[in-house]
Amino acid sequence: MKTVRVELGERAYPIHIGAGLLDNTDLYKPHIKGAKVFIITNETVAPLCLDKVESALAPIAEVHPSILPDGESHKRLSTIESIVDQMLSVPCDRKTTVVALGGGVVGDIAGFTAACYQRGIRFIQVPTTLLAQVDSSVGGKTGVNHPLGKNMIGAFHQPVCVIADSEILTSLPEREFCAGLAEVIKYGLIRDLEFFEWLENNIESLLQRESNAVAYAVEQSCRNKAAVVAEDETESGIRAILNFGHTFGHAIETGLNYKDWLHGEAVAAGMVMAGELSVRLGLLSNQENQRIKPLLKKTKLPISPPRHLNAKEFKSIMAVDKKAEAGTVKFIVLNQLGNAQITSDYDNEILDSTLASFLG
Amino acid sequence: MKTVRVELGERAYPIHIGAGLLDNTDLYKPHIKGAKVFIITNETVAPLCLDKVESALAPIAEVHPSILPDGESHKRLSTIESIVDQMLSVPCDRKTTVVALGGGVVGDIAGFTAACYQRGIRFIQVPTTLLAQVDSSVGGKTGVNHPLGKNMIGAFHQPVCVIADSEILTSLPEREFCAGLAEVIKYGLIRDLEFFEWLENNIESLLQRESNAVAYAVEQSCRNKAAVVAEDETESGIRAILNFGHTFGHAIETGLNYKDWLHGEAVAAGMVMAGELSVRLGLLSNQENQRIKPLLKKTKLPISPPRHLNAKEFKSIMAVDKKAEAGTVKFIVLNQLGNAQITSDYDNEILDSTLASFLG
Repeated sequence: MKTVRVELGERAYPIHIGAGLLDNTDLYKPHIKGAKVFIITNETVAPLCLDKVESALAPIAEVHPSILPDGESHKRLSTIESIVDQMLSVPCDRKTTVVALGGGVVGDIAGFTAACYQRGIRFIQVPTTLLAQVDSSVGGKTGVNHPLGKNMIGAFHQPVCVIADSEILTSLPEREFCAGLAEVIKYGLIRDLEFFEWLENNIESLLQRESNAVAYAVEQSCRNKAAVVAEDETESGIRAILNFGHTFGHAIETGLNYKDWLHGEAVAAGMVMAGELSVRLGLLSNQENQRIKPLLKKTKLPISPPRHLNAKEFKSIMAVDKKAEAGTVKFIVLNQLGNAQITSDYDNEILDSTLASFLG
Repeated sequence: MKTVRVELGERAYPIHIGAGLLDNTDLYKPHIKGAKVFIITNETVAPLCLDKVESALAPIAEVHPSILPDGESHKRLSTIESIVDQMLSVPCDRKTTVVALGGGVVGDIAGFTAACYQRGIRFIQVPTTLLAQVDSSVGGKTGVNHPLGKNMIGAFHQPVCVIADSEILTSLPEREFCAGLAEVIKYGLIRDLEFFEWLENNIESLLQRESNAVAYAVEQSCRNKAAVVAEDETESGIRAILNFGHTFGHAIETGLNYKDWLHGEAVAAGMVMAGELSVRLGLLSNQENQRIKPLLKKTKLPISPPRHLNAKEFKSIMAVDKKAEAGTVKFIVLNQLGNAQITSDYDNEILDSTLASFLG
């Protein structure tokens, strides 16, 4: 087992990474304070591992599970309200610990529920997808969607612990595993050239889910994310680089009404678009940019947005992005592989021509 | 103008108290960062002072008002969702400042909206009731109700500034003004005997809303509240004393479905019940307890709960109180006038007999 710490002063917490951690009572124990635990999971994850987590927790707390329907379409405010219904019926008190058992959607919903239940209670992330293990479970971003934009209602609420069991990843559908790798590749691109090159050399082992390769990729991803989060918890500056590919990616997801494409797939296409923008802005060399697509292709990820999306609509979706300020959308661009920066100082025509090269 | 500071490190903020502050551009200016201000108010307050606040803000920002229906029954999650609709349509970005213009309900709704809009934006409290000026606008508690309990969904989110204009209080209906005085009296009871005695001596001037008396009462209340909040921002300990009378009071409000009684009225009856419990627990002398009711009576506040509420139902409502832990309800009791403590170590029979002395 490897442990990465997210250094956030009194809100610091460990991320435990390894095989077979899910049912290890000792990992949960230091973080459970009250008499009750409320597990939030979904109907896909529950049959795979809810019993393991319940039996790990049973010796230390009274366990109440809540099983949500699967899917991003349930990541909305009415779901929070119905979970609160259940929690008040238990009743859960302020010392209750919420356990988020599932992928990014479950983590975002459970985290936001914990953030606002009785003005905030403790929660533990037990991410069961690669995407959640390397990204959404770390850093305290929680929230729900709104028809006009993703994650528009939410909170920064840090977990007290993250338990990333790599064994559970072997049961992931291939498409979902590959989508998770998009975020892994992102860390290489934005701040870790050495890791990017390791990925270029080891992508086959990762795709075959070789245990050591997967654990290493998760650990390096968490190390990179933890370092950025520790520097800028609430994204007033540098943390925004974690959104590389996401401004374009969110517009793809919103344009598709959060259907058809997985988040990581939208981010993959978004990273290609952001790479292209970086080249057109004269920041990234063409030669370096050429290394992005082949790795994404090998990872079976899309390298362009759905052609039927319209450039004008795309731009108006980006204008309500959380990173927009006074109507100017900020972009994360690359100066070189392994080095990202935030920019709001760009020529609008260059953005337009970049969009035109990808969209109808 | 008097200014009380809430000392919370990087989240410290000023409370400005005085007559005619509402339309003073200079008070808002240091706290507006982006290009837009979104004012949340209600249909009762808007005709009285929305134009003043709008004209104060117009020189420094683009102003968008949202006028809610009046009443605690609108303090629910669906209202937050509809405000977010409006804010995304503007569109408001992360630098937008929310202004809460109204009483406690508006402040709680607007504060919680600011807490979760795009994971948290700045907000200014402009409380227009006595209750809001002395209590709810200070300290960062925000949230909405749930059918099973008050303020069950919410966040700690501090305002960047509080502007308490005492002139606006002259237009308050008498019943509402008196309800606000319940919280003023509370500060004397829990930690400021000198202020309690000042209130005993000056209650007539206050009821006649003599400008100096009102300003002094608001200032002393804010000083007391700010000191407690600075010591314990998220209520892990001492801050709970601010809930003196509220455990009983919330049960009254829930028992009445938040109808008929004002919050301050429920707190007044709740303080009498908490005083009685303190005496029965052998903590407060009978003689000191005798000074509570006369002051509340002079203030035209109720000194007992509605007789038709049932003791058993009352207890089960209290069991889901946010202050309950593992089924044990914590009470704030008085050791003497001006000195409160938190207790969860009490004889259940004493609680039962206290309830029986007030309820059916």
